[in-house]
Amino acid sequence: MTSSLSDVQSSFPEPTTGQGPRSPAPGLTAAFDPERFHDGAAAIVTRLTRYLGDHSVRGLDLLDPAVLLKAARDLMTHETAHIADFDADRVNQIVDLYTGTGIPVYSPGYMGRQFSGVVPLASLIDLVGSVVNQPSSFYEAGQLPSVAERLMAEHLNHFIGWEPGRYAMVTTSGGSLANMTALLAARDRAFPQIWTRGAGGTPGPPAIAVSEQTHYSVTRAAGVLGIGERQIIRLPADSAGRIRPDLAGPALDEAHRRGLRPFCLVASAGTTAMGAFDPLEELAAVARRYGLWLHVDGAHGASLLLSDHHRHKLRGIDQADSLTWDAHKMLFMPAPCTLLFYRDAATARGAFRQRASYVFDEEPDPYSAYDSADKNFECTKRPMIMPLWAVWSVYGPALFAQKIDRLCEVTRQAADMIAAEPDFAVAHRPESNILCFRYRPPGLQDATAHRLQLEIRNRIRGGGRFFISKVDIDAVAALRVVVMNHLIDAGHLAMLIAEIRDIGQQVLRASAATGNDQRNGSHT
Amino acid sequence: MTSSLSDVQSSFPEPTTGQGPRSPAPGLTAAFDPERFHDGAAAIVTRLTRYLGDHSVRGLDLLDPAVLLKAARDLMTHETAHIADFDADRVNQIVDLYTGTGIPVYSPGYMGRQFSGVVPLASLIDLVGSVVNQPSSFYEAGQLPSVAERLMAEHLNHFIGWEPGRYAMVTTSGGSLANMTALLAARDRAFPQIWTRGAGGTPGPPAIAVSEQTHYSVTRAAGVLGIGERQIIRLPADSAGRIRPDLAGPALDEAHRRGLRPFCLVASAGTTAMGAFDPLEELAAVARRYGLWLHVDGAHGASLLLSDHHRHKLRGIDQADSLTWDAHKMLFMPAPCTLLFYRDAATARGAFRQRASYVFDEEPDPYSAYDSADKNFECTKRPMIMPLWAVWSVYGPALFAQKIDRLCEVTRQAADMIAAEPDFAVAHRPESNILCFRYRPPGLQDATAHRLQLEIRNRIRGGGRFFISKVDIDAVAALRVVVMNHLIDAGHLAMLIAEIRDIGQQVLRASAATGNDQRNGSHT
Repeated sequence: MTSSLSDVQSSFPEPTTGQGPRSPAPGLTAAFDPERFHDGAAAIVTRLTRYLGDHSVRGLDLLDPAVLLKAARDLMTHETAHIADFDADRVNQIVDLYTGTGIPVYSPGYMGRQFSGVVPLASLIDLVGSVVNQPSSFYEAGQLPSVAERLMAEHLNHFIGWEPGRYAMVTTSGGSLANMTALLAARDRAFPQIWTRGAGGTPGPPAIAVSEQTHYSVTRAAGVLGIGERQIIRLPADSAGRIRPDLAGPALDEAHRRGLRPFCLVASAGTTAMGAFDPLEELAAVARRYGLWLHVDGAHGASLLLSDHHRHKLRGIDQADSLTWDAHKMLFMPAPCTLLFYRDAATARGAFRQRASYVFDEEPDPYSAYDSADKNFECTKRPMIMPLWAVWSVYGPALFAQKIDRLCEVTRQAADMIAAEPDFAVAHRPESNILCFRYRPPGLQDATAHRLQLEIRNRIRGGGRFFISKVDIDAVAALRVVVMNHLIDAGHLAMLIAEIRDIGQQVLRASAATGNDQRNGSHT
Repeated sequence: MTSSLSDVQSSFPEPTTGQGPRSPAPGLTAAFDPERFHDGAAAIVTRLTRYLGDHSVRGLDLLDPAVLLKAARDLMTHETAHIADFDADRVNQIVDLYTGTGIPVYSPGYMGRQFSGVVPLASLIDLVGSVVNQPSSFYEAGQLPSVAERLMAEHLNHFIGWEPGRYAMVTTSGGSLANMTALLAARDRAFPQIWTRGAGGTPGPPAIAVSEQTHYSVTRAAGVLGIGERQIIRLPADSAGRIRPDLAGPALDEAHRRGLRPFCLVASAGTTAMGAFDPLEELAAVARRYGLWLHVDGAHGASLLLSDHHRHKLRGIDQADSLTWDAHKMLFMPAPCTLLFYRDAATARGAFRQRASYVFDEEPDPYSAYDSADKNFECTKRPMIMPLWAVWSVYGPALFAQKIDRLCEVTRQAADMIAAEPDFAVAHRPESNILCFRYRPPGLQDATAHRLQLEIRNRIRGGGRFFISKVDIDAVAALRVVVMNHLIDAGHLAMLIAEIRDIGQQVLRASAATGNDQRNGSHT
């Protein structure tokens, strides 16, 4: 060792004290100038304030990518040899293009997806985090974020009900990563040898049981982990999209007969398609009976725990082993901000099992107890907890509860209004803030109805006043609204219903005129 | 279908038109008030401007977590029943605690890790992204981010040199996720059946070849994918930390003799410990010979491609199959912002192979060509490209090249200065901006030297003027500086050297005084 070190040193040139690098170029220093930051911030904040104040009913202005590509390219400096002179106008044009081409998430016309306009204070704290840049996998690097994780875990676990001192929570970059991490912990409990020996040597193929309605990230995780899609046991759901616990046992028995080794049951709270809540209490009993880890994908619906009116939908959550909870969905935070809870902290450490000397300390100290790098996938992790902790600290939990209550109420109202229309059909009674329905005048065949919904959805999007989504339910497309904006009211819903009917009738008339009478389903 | 729908509807109460939910509570509306955002932004920007202007030489003020926990808890409102009245002072205190307890990444005293003070304009664009909240896995949701990904890929690939129209790039949440994603694509090329059938049925255990010096995220990914740590083939490195291509072949031959089925070779550009660049050209030849996918983990060092002086360290990158490139390291962006490049877009789609009706369109349209959700792990993905694209558009590539050149120059100067000190030993000639060295007066045994570096590192951290890290090299701890700040100059380096010597001598004297003469290595 010593000799090789001196070898390295002897190959060095003489020290060049006094001949070091020149000072950094003025253009480089100027790019980090605090005053430039200050002035730039003022211009941007003015624009964002105007953006936040625009509550006009708008959907999406979907641009031809080639047109947008050219516009964006034209905003790029051609200077390559030197640092380009700062051009405040160019920055403003970039910001205008950015704010102008997105889904207007603060508009009541936006009802399409599970992200939303965030609590503005969250964005400001996000800005602080972006500047102070404290990766929060290690206490050393992100002291306050590490502590804030602890505090938020405590406050949120109050609603979950796990044993203090035993549960654990880590933040991670999105629900997909949280679901995968939980599956890894579950796999490690059942097959601890896989981490070192690989997946090849298990007595039978490891398998997971999921709802027909499970999010694609769960089945994707099975592919990633080498479980294989064939080893995914699909548990039947009822017409509302909830796993039927009475059919779960037989499905698991059948899997065992096929030689599979199920180790995890993934329930949803709620599902992406319809916002349905699986019966957790009954499924916990199934999981116990079959020795399965119970993971609850509450990416969307775990936030309902904060509401006195809706908490009961997660009854049984205290019996789960792990829970995915996206704060960037129903806690209205900038994405991503996902919280992964474990009932038992000891199992959390099973997900990943490694050490690296440049980050992990040899001898744990008082600080390393607050490190999360042994429990989350990321090495460099954004301090995503900070916007949530700050908003919670300033406004308290009622901000979330009240907004959630309102969104669910408006969604129920939407279901009532649509159910009252003779040419519409709701697909389910909404359990949260997601509602699926169809424009379906009597007599349409399924195939025709399917194409009609897709066409309506695209024309609505093209019309630019509303933005809604679509989903297949029992192989027939349905329209889908996700009420994420507390400004949406019955007036907006009535406008949307009228617009859907107008478009639907236009489409049907046009088909009839071209001799392609969709009502008779002549084309399937 | 139809009958179950009407069943659902018949269970509905009568529509309650006119009896909808009350208006949202005033406290809820106020939390989204644009003026509140505007005023809050002004206060925060003032604080951040001051923060950015503080260039005093400071390290880390590491607080007792219990003390910080109490301080943070005291900042949380106790109001739970109602939305708490807005308290601007509370927000200011939160921001002060946040900025005051982090590693001061803009200070020349910070030399510890691979994250840094970001380009301030990047943070402002990050703020816009946080407010407009455009998840960028789908063109529909994030039009400009999707287009910006295309443009940045084009500009950066100019330096990689892959065939236009054939390569692909996706952004993803961190280097760990990018490395795992690339391994999945590689696995799919070699073992396409694993995704559906699982990892159990391959003819021999799939294996990957990595450097002894590889980042822990790569070996962790092997655990995640069910490859198993035992199937990791460790390729020997030279004393500078670079894979020895002459020993790679024999190691792979030996693996084949053991029955393993290597499918991927992971090279580093550069390594985390020492910033070493593996010889890509030679390793590409090895990969070709053995039919391996060549993945280059350039999380830290890919950015050197932008520098005329340092580009040559990545010679051969054009022959790789994939490349991980962290813009939150040497492109000075807020974390995370990772770019994953593939030489062949067709292979990128092998990493994940799924469809979900609520997000993926049945019939691809002009828009879906810009979607990235089929190529990245995340469903909801932060528009992380935007800060990078905006800074690049405004300043051009020279901003990055000049900063990188300066950081590497200062690091070389540090190596020269340290090599000239008789009681110090550098561990390698730095190839980039990472330098490892030891305070090692002659005569110390390895075990004593090991403990001495750890103690020095902790005392430096405790002293609060500098922040450096440590790493084990050949099982002996070394001190490690990462020069991420262009304001660091020879004066700061001289101060650091003096401080290390002072502390090192104190530690050695204290050991001698207690009869525990570390020079004799009486305790091992």
